[in-house]
Amino acid sequence: MQRDSFSASPAPIQASKTLNRIGQGRHFLQIPGPTNVPDRVLRAIDYPTIDHRGPEFQRLGLKILEAIKPVFGTVQPVIIYPGSGTGAWEAALVNTLSAGDTVLMVETGQFASLWKKLAEKLGLKPEFITGNWRRGVDAQQIEDRLRQDPHHTIKAVCVVHNETSTGVTSDIAAVRRAIDAARHPALLMVDTISSMGSVEFKHDEWGVDVTIAGSQKGLMLPPGISFNAVSDKAIAASKTATLPKAYWAWEEIIAANKNGFWPSTPATNILYGLAEALDMLFEEGLPNVYARHKRHAEATRRAVRAWGLEILCENPAEYSPVLTAVVMPKKADGSYYNADDFRKQILEHYNMSLGMGLAKLQGWVFRIGHLGDFNDLTLLGTLGGVEMGLARCGIPHQKGGVQAAIDYLAN
Amino acid sequence: MQRDSFSASPAPIQASKTLNRIGQGRHFLQIPGPTNVPDRVLRAIDYPTIDHRGPEFQRLGLKILEAIKPVFGTVQPVIIYPGSGTGAWEAALVNTLSAGDTVLMVETGQFASLWKKLAEKLGLKPEFITGNWRRGVDAQQIEDRLRQDPHHTIKAVCVVHNETSTGVTSDIAAVRRAIDAARHPALLMVDTISSMGSVEFKHDEWGVDVTIAGSQKGLMLPPGISFNAVSDKAIAASKTATLPKAYWAWEEIIAANKNGFWPSTPATNILYGLAEALDMLFEEGLPNVYARHKRHAEATRRAVRAWGLEILCENPAEYSPVLTAVVMPKKADGSYYNADDFRKQILEHYNMSLGMGLAKLQGWVFRIGHLGDFNDLTLLGTLGGVEMGLARCGIPHQKGGVQAAIDYLAN
Amino acid sequence: MQRDSFSASPAPIQASKTLNRIGQGRHFLQIPGPTNVPDRVLRAIDYPTIDHRGPEFQRLGLKILEAIKPVFGTVQPVIIYPGSGTGAWEAALVNTLSAGDTVLMVETGQFASLWKKLAEKLGLKPEFITGNWRRGVDAQQIEDRLRQDPHHTIKAVCVVHNETSTGVTSDIAAVRRAIDAARHPALLMVDTISSMGSVEFKHDEWGVDVTIAGSQKGLMLPPGISFNAVSDKAIAASKTATLPKAYWAWEEIIAANKNGFWPSTPATNILYGLAEALDMLFEEGLPNVYARHKRHAEATRRAVRAWGLEILCENPAEYSPVLTAVVMPKKADGSYYNADDFRKQILEHYNMSLGMGLAKLQGWVFRIGHLGDFNDLTLLGTLGGVEMGLARCGIPHQKGGVQAAIDYLAN
Amino acid sequence: MQRDSFSASPAPIQASKTLNRIGQGRHFLQIPGPTNVPDRVLRAIDYPTIDHRGPEFQRLGLKILEAIKPVFGTVQPVIIYPGSGTGAWEAALVNTLSAGDTVLMVETGQFASLWKKLAEKLGLKPEFITGNWRRGVDAQQIEDRLRQDPHHTIKAVCVVHNETSTGVTSDIAAVRRAIDAARHPALLMVDTISSMGSVEFKHDEWGVDVTIAGSQKGLMLPPGISFNAVSDKAIAASKTATLPKAYWAWEEIIAANKNGFWPSTPATNILYGLAEALDMLFEEGLPNVYARHKRHAEATRRAVRAWGLEILCENPAEYSPVLTAVVMPKKADGSYYNADDFRKQILEHYNMSLGMGLAKLQGWVFRIGHLGDFNDLTLLGTLGGVEMGLARCGIPHQKGGVQAAIDYLAN
Repeated sequence: MQRDSFSASPAPIQASKTLNRIGQGRHFLQIPGPTNVPDRVLRAIDYPTIDHRGPEFQRLGLKILEAIKPVFGTVQPVIIYPGSGTGAWEAALVNTLSAGDTVLMVETGQFASLWKKLAEKLGLKPEFITGNWRRGVDAQQIEDRLRQDPHHTIKAVCVVHNETSTGVTSDIAAVRRAIDAARHPALLMVDTISSMGSVEFKHDEWGVDVTIAGSQKGLMLPPGISFNAVSDKAIAASKTATLPKAYWAWEEIIAANKNGFWPSTPATNILYGLAEALDMLFEEGLPNVYARHKRHAEATRRAVRAWGLEILCENPAEYSPVLTAVVMPKKADGSYYNADDFRKQILEHYNMSLGMGLAKLQGWVFRIGHLGDFNDLTLLGTLGGVEMGLARCGIPHQKGGVQAAIDYLAN
Repeated sequence: MQRDSFSASPAPIQASKTLNRIGQGRHFLQIPGPTNVPDRVLRAIDYPTIDHRGPEFQRLGLKILEAIKPVFGTVQPVIIYPGSGTGAWEAALVNTLSAGDTVLMVETGQFASLWKKLAEKLGLKPEFITGNWRRGVDAQQIEDRLRQDPHHTIKAVCVVHNETSTGVTSDIAAVRRAIDAARHPALLMVDTISSMGSVEFKHDEWGVDVTIAGSQKGLMLPPGISFNAVSDKAIAASKTATLPKAYWAWEEIIAANKNGFWPSTPATNILYGLAEALDMLFEEGLPNVYARHKRHAEATRRAVRAWGLEILCENPAEYSPVLTAVVMPKKADGSYYNADDFRKQILEHYNMSLGMGLAKLQGWVFRIGHLGDFNDLTLLGTLGGVEMGLARCGIPHQKGGVQAAIDYLAN
Repeated sequence: MQRDSFSASPAPIQASKTLNRIGQGRHFLQIPGPTNVPDRVLRAIDYPTIDHRGPEFQRLGLKILEAIKPVFGTVQPVIIYPGSGTGAWEAALVNTLSAGDTVLMVETGQFASLWKKLAEKLGLKPEFITGNWRRGVDAQQIEDRLRQDPHHTIKAVCVVHNETSTGVTSDIAAVRRAIDAARHPALLMVDTISSMGSVEFKHDEWGVDVTIAGSQKGLMLPPGISFNAVSDKAIAASKTATLPKAYWAWEEIIAANKNGFWPSTPATNILYGLAEALDMLFEEGLPNVYARHKRHAEATRRAVRAWGLEILCENPAEYSPVLTAVVMPKKADGSYYNADDFRKQILEHYNMSLGMGLAKLQGWVFRIGHLGDFNDLTLLGTLGGVEMGLARCGIPHQKGGVQAAIDYLAN
Repeated sequence: MQRDSFSASPAPIQASKTLNRIGQGRHFLQIPGPTNVPDRVLRAIDYPTIDHRGPEFQRLGLKILEAIKPVFGTVQPVIIYPGSGTGAWEAALVNTLSAGDTVLMVETGQFASLWKKLAEKLGLKPEFITGNWRRGVDAQQIEDRLRQDPHHTIKAVCVVHNETSTGVTSDIAAVRRAIDAARHPALLMVDTISSMGSVEFKHDEWGVDVTIAGSQKGLMLPPGISFNAVSDKAIAASKTATLPKAYWAWEEIIAANKNGFWPSTPATNILYGLAEALDMLFEEGLPNVYARHKRHAEATRRAVRAWGLEILCENPAEYSPVLTAVVMPKKADGSYYNADDFRKQILEHYNMSLGMGLAKLQGWVFRIGHLGDFNDLTLLGTLGGVEMGLARCGIPHQKGGVQAAIDYLAN
């Protein structure tokens, strides 16, 4: 059959042409996720789509569902959804809670705030421990609050492991100890969207009930799938919780997963990528992966300090291994040099994407992602781009940030 | 950095090895979706992931959101979710309805039944017009029922355009006329998961309020994204509906889409594929695409009849252009030759996946998908595989099915 | 750096757009090579190019050079060139012969004729045993000729294992026996360009001195690399032969290959593909690969006979397992229906490429390739396209060719 | 058909596993070619192989053959071979020369020496103007020599535009002026293997007769195809030259190219890549491409000087825009720190390949490639890897090389 043209057709999109407008050479995707997807994973996801009810897919499904567990530090089921991290947030809540339930959340930054907003939309009553967006969770505050909840009105404690908006981590084991110290039955739910696969996480050992994760950060995949790891206690809660749930309902998925299948159509090709990414993580060795992220984070902070800029995170014990949020210097008039203009210059002149300051950080904070498929030289290119951007935009700084990173990394 | 091995690591998955166990040559993926993904689309989805908040992605987003509209036959917004078709079903309901609302659904087959079950899980009250799984929607029944609903208890009429489990289509324009004839304000929601991009659909002209679609059928993409096209009336309903909604909520998405963005992270790489698939559909011309599917369906039915087998769909006016469900012949003892054994033999010997009979059709019905990226020769290979399978399994049939298809196609 | 436009630039080529003008669905590439390249091989060749002097490439090189040997049936070196099959013909001659040397060649068809022409261009004196292009090599003729060469003027006997232009194979073991019977020291050179990887070949056992092969046929790769397998006797000849040789010279390549390297830059990415193709051949098992080609060839011939058309190859013992050349029927006026018009219609209407009749076969012969990455259903699609083309072009034939193939294959 | 295992099969190669042994993150391929192949080109080369005699390929061929010309600075034919740069050297000589012809060559480094050796193997008599491998061609020496050749024994002058072994360029226009000043009819042949696409070149304006190029450097392709651009005078010479030629013969190729075809099978998939690479070069604009390479070369030299290391090229006017060869510092005992140990450490610890010192430069020179698909940040990563390597290996140097590059690039 010859192709006819269709008079009412829109102009061709030509995706590769539409996308390739800026710069030459490889793009540096240094937002804190999506991260640079490894070539091996990209090749895996373009393998032809197959029957998701057939024996070949079944073999793959069974292997993936088993291999994903050590990354989460669990022997429990890990549920995989076609969906974004936001979807996995929703899944955690609708499976375990009922309309009007109180949940204790902690304002570590924009993502904690968005999760709280989502809880409200779902008809829950989040109680928000406020924060200054420069520190992680204070486990003592949680313990104190839970001790004042003798009737166990609070059904869940929800915290973010790594706040993508601020570059601040929280001590999840300490939160578990706090809950236990208060002898409170609340579920512990942890958002690991930007830490999973990059920062050590122990779902079982730390007594987490629901771990929420996404594909596009440390797991080195394109966005499109997200995760819930669940404890027995969470599963038990899901049997009685009454928020409406269907797409996100764990029960049917866990049952079908036993045979390597999913009840509704899984995102076949992203799962191919997940298989490859898991192979890569285990080839490198998870402890090496975690150490690598810490090392690159330290190198980044040394660069930031050498430039004379301020790291947003106030507490060194809570520095994020996966991103560093940086405060722009101030002008004589007390206003900040504009972070978004700065990022725009860097994108246009150096073909690098940096993360913007979100919500109340907008305009005066930028974020450097140093996670995922990444190595020393990519980091030096990244930091070099920041230092050149500072110079190009006339932003007051000391030279030598890249040098400081080199000095640290070379040892 | 050298890669260490990690003692507790699982065995490597080796996706390409895990997947490649059956047969040589190209697999024939003739289930009624996921369909054979064109090479151009596969190459598009493995283009490196980029910043979903940057100007390059914005350009792509704006183009996609505009080009998708003519496929749905609408000038209204088309919402794209990371998620499966099941998710898009849920999205349609939670955006527009409130707990306890009555919805009128029609039992055209397994997918209509699953949608009804999903509605129940969400706390709705579906009223189910029963059916024999061999016919489409009877618009008169809908009209009759709505006329008996003077207080407008029924909030929505939900029908499936193309029943993937049976190969039967329904006349959507007739359903709209029925609703109008009954002067009933119920929303009209249509599942086009297996018809969109293959069968003509006119969201605006037919007065559909929510059109639900998926990526992995006529749109020729891997599974992973799904769609809601919405009318003004549906959007209005979403302002007052009270089912909890967050991830699926249209409002924020429509607002962000105006600038080419999404509120939560979109499935970047599948969207690359969508851009390419849309280009392909318009290059061929939508009328040509629809005509091609009809022609392949007719050729398939001629083969089925030549074999002396029965087509599940009873009403020729409702034959599906995208798949044909076939009834297995009976043995002397009155039982059916087993459809699943038959499919298994075909998979193992001829490297082709056929669709199974679902639910009450299991074991005695199989389905031939002839949709998506497909041409005359692929169809002949497909039908040849079925005819060889019949011979190999000793299933009584007349030879000459492929010949009948050739005779039809060659003219 | 922003991209400027350059006033004198040519219009963009847009390869994927330029290539995608004909038809929808997957193209059927049924010329007798290049063949359909498997998805696994295509993915392998787009892996990033690496340092061809580094340890990673070395590992790959050593493995490939070892694994290729069983396909050629040799334990001797197999030399791999960036180049086409024509280059490998030249390599065989310039390494072993001197200006003015007589070589005995056999006119089995167009490729034998081209090889002869190439020998002339290089300053050799080919003696050509003529043929009717419908039969393979007559070993007795070779023996007779060699017996009449008491002074061993003839330095080499050059034959084509599978004549790609005619679909006729030759018995190489018989040629060796003929040479030995004549007690003649001539080298035996065999063109296996369209047989290697599809038809059993035993370089060592059959006493072949130089085996010439290419990548784009049974080895399932894109064109771009070609091969010489060599005997000790051939290597010895290369030490004294005086035709100028540099690029093609075996010596340096064999030496460098010992360490997994090449003296000049190898075609890295095609070699990635070769590694994958070798894995695929051994996964299927070489005996299975050879049996598969024979079975598909027989099915094709049954179809041709059912159509009432004539197979070009006159001798059933010499039927090619990889392609079938078919004679067009004649019109009332004694002229042939035009084969090229026929192929053009099939390309435009059924998205399939068939091989043209070459040289004196042009216009009245077409060729069906059934080699490489291929299976039963692809064959049925292929034959279906031929049968539909016959009908569409009004070429007299009996129906039932595809049916004959089905009947054969299903048993 | 089920896959059987074949008892005598070699172990699977598993190319992607075999290749992925070193490091994580993207490899930095900073040898002076093969260069980093852009993602767009890699995707292009894995598009399915098609019929090289069909209309789709013809369209592509015609476009490529036209678009390649401005890169060579010519309106004459550019011949494309499946083959390496070495093959294109051979092609230039065998097309235009006869056995025993004298050619004047200039010892600019290892590649000039290899070309001379190749000329000898082909039976030519190269006369070699010796050099110290740290300077380019001295046009005056050529002029002087040609003036002493009144009988025009010298048939060709062969020079290397960019010596890949030394990082030294030569002034081709000056060589042409020298030949003209001597009123000598010798052909001018120029090796642009490592400059084409990166350094401005004007085949026509500079009066070059044969320009030799390869795919794997500035043209950003994998290795596998190479080029001869030819003048009318060269074509005229090819009519009478008597070195045996067949595979490399221009005549047939030029004739077939007029219709977009090639006489023997072209390297289809690499040509897809060439189409994409040409689009990319023109999108950036050739003047921008050339300026970019110069700028990165200057930044690299500033880094080298800041480290206190010596640039091999002695003459600033001849600095290469595509690579910089660097001399290792000496130890107290007068011996050099070992360049190969240094490169090995960098490969293992920083996942970067640097070029080795070739032939007499081995062990005391290393080479940094800064050509092809490359940008400022990739350069900073590259230089950072060198600086870290110097530190890690305890090689005496000043810190601040990367800083010097940043200071230069940021302005």
